[in-house]
Amino acid sequence: MLTLPSILADSHARLVACSAPREESRAAFREQFGGNAYSSIEDLASDLDVEAVYIATPHQMHREHAEILAAGGKHILVEKPLAISMADADAIVAATERAGVTLITGPSHSFDQPIVAARRLIDEGKFGRVRMVHAFNYTDFLYRPRRPEELVTEQGGGVVFSQAVHQVDVVRLLMGGKAISVTAATGGWDEKRPTEGAYAALITFDGGRFANLVYSGYAHYDSDVLQDNVGELGTEKDPKNYGAARRALATVSSPEEEAALKSRRTFGAVETPPAAPYPEHFGPVIVSCDRADLRITAKAVEIWGDIDRETIKINADPAPRAEVLEALYHSIRNKKHPPQTGAWGAVSLEICHAILESARTQTHVMLRQ
Amino acid sequence: MLTLPSILADSHARLVACSAPREESRAAFREQFGGNAYSSIEDLASDLDVEAVYIATPHQMHREHAEILAAGGKHILVEKPLAISMADADAIVAATERAGVTLITGPSHSFDQPIVAARRLIDEGKFGRVRMVHAFNYTDFLYRPRRPEELVTEQGGGVVFSQAVHQVDVVRLLMGGKAISVTAATGGWDEKRPTEGAYAALITFDGGRFANLVYSGYAHYDSDVLQDNVGELGTEKDPKNYGAARRALATVSSPEEEAALKSRRTFGAVETPPAAPYPEHFGPVIVSCDRADLRITAKAVEIWGDIDRETIKINADPAPRAEVLEALYHSIRNKKHPPQTGAWGAVSLEICHAILESARTQTHVMLRQ
Repeated sequence: MLTLPSILADSHARLVACSAPREESRAAFREQFGGNAYSSIEDLASDLDVEAVYIATPHQMHREHAEILAAGGKHILVEKPLAISMADADAIVAATERAGVTLITGPSHSFDQPIVAARRLIDEGKFGRVRMVHAFNYTDFLYRPRRPEELVTEQGGGVVFSQAVHQVDVVRLLMGGKAISVTAATGGWDEKRPTEGAYAALITFDGGRFANLVYSGYAHYDSDVLQDNVGELGTEKDPKNYGAARRALATVSSPEEEAALKSRRTFGAVETPPAAPYPEHFGPVIVSCDRADLRITAKAVEIWGDIDRETIKINADPAPRAEVLEALYHSIRNKKHPPQTGAWGAVSLEICHAILESARTQTHVMLRQ
Repeated sequence: MLTLPSILADSHARLVACSAPREESRAAFREQFGGNAYSSIEDLASDLDVEAVYIATPHQMHREHAEILAAGGKHILVEKPLAISMADADAIVAATERAGVTLITGPSHSFDQPIVAARRLIDEGKFGRVRMVHAFNYTDFLYRPRRPEELVTEQGGGVVFSQAVHQVDVVRLLMGGKAISVTAATGGWDEKRPTEGAYAALITFDGGRFANLVYSGYAHYDSDVLQDNVGELGTEKDPKNYGAARRALATVSSPEEEAALKSRRTFGAVETPPAAPYPEHFGPVIVSCDRADLRITAKAVEIWGDIDRETIKINADPAPRAEVLEALYHSIRNKKHPPQTGAWGAVSLEICHAILESARTQTHVMLRQ
């Protein structure tokens, strides 16, 4: 639902087919776009009109779907996290390499306009090296309606696989270079929702550089107040909605009812959302360079320099997530690949696993790459 | 200079003597307060009119001075860090225990009014347990005028001994309970000032709880913008002073000149500052509890609860740092000791050493207590 507007708005893309398990979704697809709507991935993989596929299925299905589609010669954009297990992630990368197709892990918040703009400013070189990135985010993630597996860590549930992976992508893009080790603490503070809902993580990078990530999905405090009061998806927040997630959840009496509440947000069940007025974002980020700090908000990159400060306003894309569609196009047509390849997605996933492992074992976890 | 107004304002305290190596300071003391001004600590320790002494000498001198004063039966308020080496810290604690005198490590920002108010709210119990504390601070600490040893880590220089110790005190006071382990990364980003100027640290506490600390003393970004634009010492910041520390330092051409610039701020050289209009603070702090998050600013404690939010305004003391004088009085007269005893100061110092050790060895450092 959230990426659809970009696909429709992209001048290089035409939406010709889909695969979905729910007849309600398939019927809506046929009616709105007139293309083929399959119930099996195999049929989608053998549709000759299909050049690239966006895999937006639950994490644990990515490998099966990617292997079938890659074998059919389709280029792939797959949602983060690339997979749940490292074995699945590696298999996806191997399958696309074997087939010679593009694999991009996205959308993720590392494609957000303010992050991309900050990276471009850093690449100009006038601020010197990036030394430290500090990212934090306080949300009500754990109290939004969930399918049961989204509350089981082993099945990819909890905030590490769904949320840390965004933050990891963002800090990796801004830091540049190689992540070396991870140390972390995680919190599971609510017995009724027994998965990780919070973490703090320290990632070391080459050259003695480091990033610090903090996330609470149990939060009452809303760090979007520091982001121009703009929410994750680029829309202005209404203070009247304070506490809405917890209030809505209090009306639910079973896991089935909760899953039903969530599925009401899927394609075919709701209208396509209007384009957001501001860029998407994933919480406050401060980048410390030798000769400036960059504070990245929802609407701007603030440059705090040696002598003075400057605010560079960032406009939202006409369609949200246009950046990732653009990346897919250039990767397929011009062999110009974005940082967020399949191998990139595997490293971000490895860092998520390292967060869980470090918290469990109280050790520094060295990354394999 | 910064604690003097509290001593003068405190109804339980009378300023009767001092010891100082500079005749300029001693003369100013005699003129302003009419008491005894000694050049040796021994003379101060045997002055029968002196009941308690505030040790505000450089870190590396604390042990010698504390041992002499404790042997003379004086109660002691000693600046943080308690010492530089753990051996010195332990010796100070042992000396005061032997002599049966009070030892308080302070002032530190754990005595700040908003921190004390937040701790009181937590103690009322309605928010449940404190699960995570996140504290960060972006300052120009490394570019303020320094004596040469303040830029040598082994001599107690750098931000870990001077600044982390504040942040550690603040998060320990808010977390409550016992710190278990420390993992950290430190940054030394400026060859001309070769000590740690930045760090990120993760401290685990009993019950799987944790605190995350981030500090940059190289910062251009000023996190006081999130603290109602109030500086560390409780005065409003003037945006016209942006970059002032770096500009002032650029006019200095030798370590001697820089030390001279710093000593211009000592007692006898400058006027006593006026009382600050707001409480002191040490950067943004977010406390995550089961049923609320507390966001602590310079002027208030914001309570973000399950259902709604509330802002509790905090007034500055009539004199800054009154809280620490009050604690000293109750400790001596009523044997009611504050959390920030000598043993407390030793643990905070141990955590500072653990930050350095973890960063150097890339391991989790277990705390001895």
